[in-house]
Amino acid sequence: MKDSEFYGQQSVTAKKIIVVGAGAIGAFYGSLLALAGAEVSVVCRSDYDHVKQHGFVINSRVLGCWNFIPSQVLQQAADFEGTADYVLLCTKVIPDLNRAALIRPVVKPDTAIVFIQNGVEIEQEMLDAFPDNEVISGLAFICCNRIKPGEIFHSAYGRLALGNLPGSVSRKTKYLCELVNRSGIECNATETIITERWKKCVWNAPFNPLSVLSGGLPTLEILNSQEAFVRNIMQEICSIAEASGHKLPNDIVNVNIENTYAMPPYKTSMLLDYENGHVMETEVILGNALRAAKRTGIASPYLESVYALMKLRELALNHLA
Amino acid sequence: MKDSEFYGQQSVTAKKIIVVGAGAIGAFYGSLLALAGAEVSVVCRSDYDHVKQHGFVINSRVLGCWNFIPSQVLQQAADFEGTADYVLLCTKVIPDLNRAALIRPVVKPDTAIVFIQNGVEIEQEMLDAFPDNEVISGLAFICCNRIKPGEIFHSAYGRLALGNLPGSVSRKTKYLCELVNRSGIECNATETIITERWKKCVWNAPFNPLSVLSGGLPTLEILNSQEAFVRNIMQEICSIAEASGHKLPNDIVNVNIENTYAMPPYKTSMLLDYENGHVMETEVILGNALRAAKRTGIASPYLESVYALMKLRELALNHLA
Repeated sequence: MKDSEFYGQQSVTAKKIIVVGAGAIGAFYGSLLALAGAEVSVVCRSDYDHVKQHGFVINSRVLGCWNFIPSQVLQQAADFEGTADYVLLCTKVIPDLNRAALIRPVVKPDTAIVFIQNGVEIEQEMLDAFPDNEVISGLAFICCNRIKPGEIFHSAYGRLALGNLPGSVSRKTKYLCELVNRSGIECNATETIITERWKKCVWNAPFNPLSVLSGGLPTLEILNSQEAFVRNIMQEICSIAEASGHKLPNDIVNVNIENTYAMPPYKTSMLLDYENGHVMETEVILGNALRAAKRTGIASPYLESVYALMKLRELALNHLA
Repeated sequence: MKDSEFYGQQSVTAKKIIVVGAGAIGAFYGSLLALAGAEVSVVCRSDYDHVKQHGFVINSRVLGCWNFIPSQVLQQAADFEGTADYVLLCTKVIPDLNRAALIRPVVKPDTAIVFIQNGVEIEQEMLDAFPDNEVISGLAFICCNRIKPGEIFHSAYGRLALGNLPGSVSRKTKYLCELVNRSGIECNATETIITERWKKCVWNAPFNPLSVLSGGLPTLEILNSQEAFVRNIMQEICSIAEASGHKLPNDIVNVNIENTYAMPPYKTSMLLDYENGHVMETEVILGNALRAAKRTGIASPYLESVYALMKLRELALNHLA
């Protein structure tokens, strides 16, 4: 299908979208796309029974509260009926999860693959797996948690950034942006999505592990107590990003610090995973950044320290469980 | 009293020793001095009732098991009857504990002050408080824990190093060494006790905080998983020590690593404090080392990281308790 045909259809046929991994992020953005008129199905594993019966309740401080009833609620992608225009992959990125295998059953020649996921240097795996498909990298700048089965609480922010790999913006990407923007949440298409990914890592690299290693402190208390340490980790991410060819804005550390002071106290996704006994995104956030540091010869002792401590923490979880 | 008189008495009068802070370390070395013939009294706070009634059981893998009945069991130093030849201060070193005030009631003109305590740069406080007394700094290289009230388990090692401040060895120090050696545990007098203190910090600086921050891993598992990180912290301590005028042996990091691999898996004192809800020696081990690093201009990002994380951990303990 050519772009012109695709756009030609938009007024008569709702786009078919399947969200794989309908946790907080997947359910939230899926619900926005449904609000905007798309036909949105979801694959959800742990909350399948509840969502199949009741759909989702999306409780947003920004947009209000509503019920999101997906078109199809599935336990695995292979059960999807129809052809998806977009597959939105929204799982965590963890070592034992094969992202490509998870979505392969619904990837047809014209399916655009969109992943809205954390971490850095997670692109190549998808480009290698689907060399003939459009691959769109997405990043959510949002405070959003799953409160209980089928209930998602959106407490702040929400901006989504989308960009084609390795670095362009397609019509399908623009159209997806338009759908999200229609819902009232900002969505930008960018030709520098890999840079955006490093930008997000500037925040994640300190706050995710520090919330876990501290024993559960929210972001504001971490910052009040150890701002200098947080800044040191952020600065290392900036140096690694620059050495990897993705220079970040000079004021990014200051802006992140100021924004976090202004944010409501927030439990990071890594802390929630930790508290719920789920696997944490240590490798994709810290490990991948450190591997990029080693490859580019950037010293990053602060990042090394939090990574080493996270690995010990994970070891303790496994050994002492 | 002159040294000659002191030694003249040794065959006729047992030396009077009061141990202030009879936890694992205080009770263990106190019991050795009693075995060697000294008249040893103890000040113990939390286990007072039990020790008053039953004394201590010392269960040593090296020396066997025996009962140590102190001469006087006291709740505070002020209750001591008699004049102490030595006061052995064996408490933890923590911010809210005034070490000088704790022993002042038993410090007479001829009382030698001995502190067997962890941490670096803890000397000046005692020299300032007791300018006219002999002040002996002591370091225990030992695996020794309090198992329950009045029961001390000595699992490995035991060497004690003693030296006068700022850097000499007195007759009183030699005599104390002799008493400990008589019991079968090695005790060395050294003119470089401050250097010894930094040497011990080489081990404590990584293993104490890492055992806590990992969530309870014993030393061997920490090492098996993150030897490079442990070495980096150790190396920073060596650099800080050297910059502070206390060059450590070139092979000290390797020796510490090898010894720890050979040690039985061990819960550090900081981990035990953490698990029991007691204040940890974060400041005296990590904080003092870092302050020395700042003063001497030595970069120490690994140490900074574990210190920052320990401060966050302590904050979480207080806030979330």
